[in-house]
Amino acid sequence: MNRCGLLPVVLNLGILISGRGSNMDAILTAIKSEKIRNVKPRVVISSKPDVAGLKVASEKHGVPIEVIPGQSLKGWDYDQKLVEALKRHGVVPETGLVCLAGFMRIISPEFVRAFRMRILNIHPALLPSFPGLHAQRQALEYGAKVTGCTVHFVDEGVDSGPVILQKAVPVLDADTEETLSDRILLQEHELYPEAVRLIAEGKIRIEGRAVSVLR
Amino acid sequence: MNRCGLLPVVLNLGILISGRGSNMDAILTAIKSEKIRNVKPRVVISSKPDVAGLKVASEKHGVPIEVIPGQSLKGWDYDQKLVEALKRHGVVPETGLVCLAGFMRIISPEFVRAFRMRILNIHPALLPSFPGLHAQRQALEYGAKVTGCTVHFVDEGVDSGPVILQKAVPVLDADTEETLSDRILLQEHELYPEAVRLIAEGKIRIEGRAVSVLR
Repeated sequence: MNRCGLLPVVLNLGILISGRGSNMDAILTAIKSEKIRNVKPRVVISSKPDVAGLKVASEKHGVPIEVIPGQSLKGWDYDQKLVEALKRHGVVPETGLVCLAGFMRIISPEFVRAFRMRILNIHPALLPSFPGLHAQRQALEYGAKVTGCTVHFVDEGVDSGPVILQKAVPVLDADTEETLSDRILLQEHELYPEAVRLIAEGKIRIEGRAVSVLR
Repeated sequence: MNRCGLLPVVLNLGILISGRGSNMDAILTAIKSEKIRNVKPRVVISSKPDVAGLKVASEKHGVPIEVIPGQSLKGWDYDQKLVEALKRHGVVPETGLVCLAGFMRIISPEFVRAFRMRILNIHPALLPSFPGLHAQRQALEYGAKVTGCTVHFVDEGVDSGPVILQKAVPVLDADTEETLSDRILLQEHELYPEAVRLIAEGKIRIEGRAVSVLR
């Protein structure tokens, strides 16, 4: 019920994956259970064929899927195919949101500019600590006692965009890369849907790098 | 009571300050209340005269104080005066521990090598995030949602040594540098004495960068 009497705004969601897409599953499940309202999943796009996440998107959640392989294509040459597919499914910058969920490609500046502050990513560390690949392994090698996960807007840098939410996760002495990754992933599955919900409800305010949450 | 029948090992503690020394006060208070046992505070050395921490060390805790000013002296030229003073008060590498508590000088490699794994520092961030000065301001400017504090061994780099303990602290939307610093400081006052206690009880094991706590 919208108090102003306006039509409810629907956010058109595209999710980009390259593997099992467990964060994708968490977001789609939160939408299905109406923890997240006013978000319509329009398409899940994978950079790799035959990954488990495609089946989850299509069969469990009934979301249209696309595969855009392109190991040989770089930067905007690849990303314009993404943008075309997103638009074809109704995910446009004005009313759309793109969630990277284990998408194993670097986003080109052109894509970032086309969807400015409309692309989210989740990173398995408390940024700016441990950016880039193998963040959990980096944390173990550093000897960190606390790490975590970060949902952030994607900008032109690597894991450098404005932070929306962060959650701390303890590192245990007995942790392996796998046990630590699993413990962080549990928190990712809470944090990423929460960030999508806050955006869908218009509760996120951005001023420069400072993202505040209206409660 | 030492089960092996050996004489208890006493750790000779030197604390280096440059200001109010609130972490120094927290450590000395924990020793006085016997939360930390088997640690003997031998000397508090300030790089600046007339700072509040000197009075707290001397009058509240009865610990010998020294002032070693030396704005003009750099690196080992200054630090050898520190080492001489520490040794004069019985703080030697074999049985000693040096805690930096708001000590506003960079430690020289010579000092680090002389007291290898015997110098501790506390930093108001979850390292490796926000090293160097004004860590709390750095966290606010980055837009971090979680920061914290880190107790670590001092090595030849800036805030780069092996991590002993870390504690997460939330950043609130309304935080200023002062309110965030105060909230972190409350945790520092718990974490730093805890690290000293663990070292005094021989519960810290170091393997490369990995510091584990025997429980």
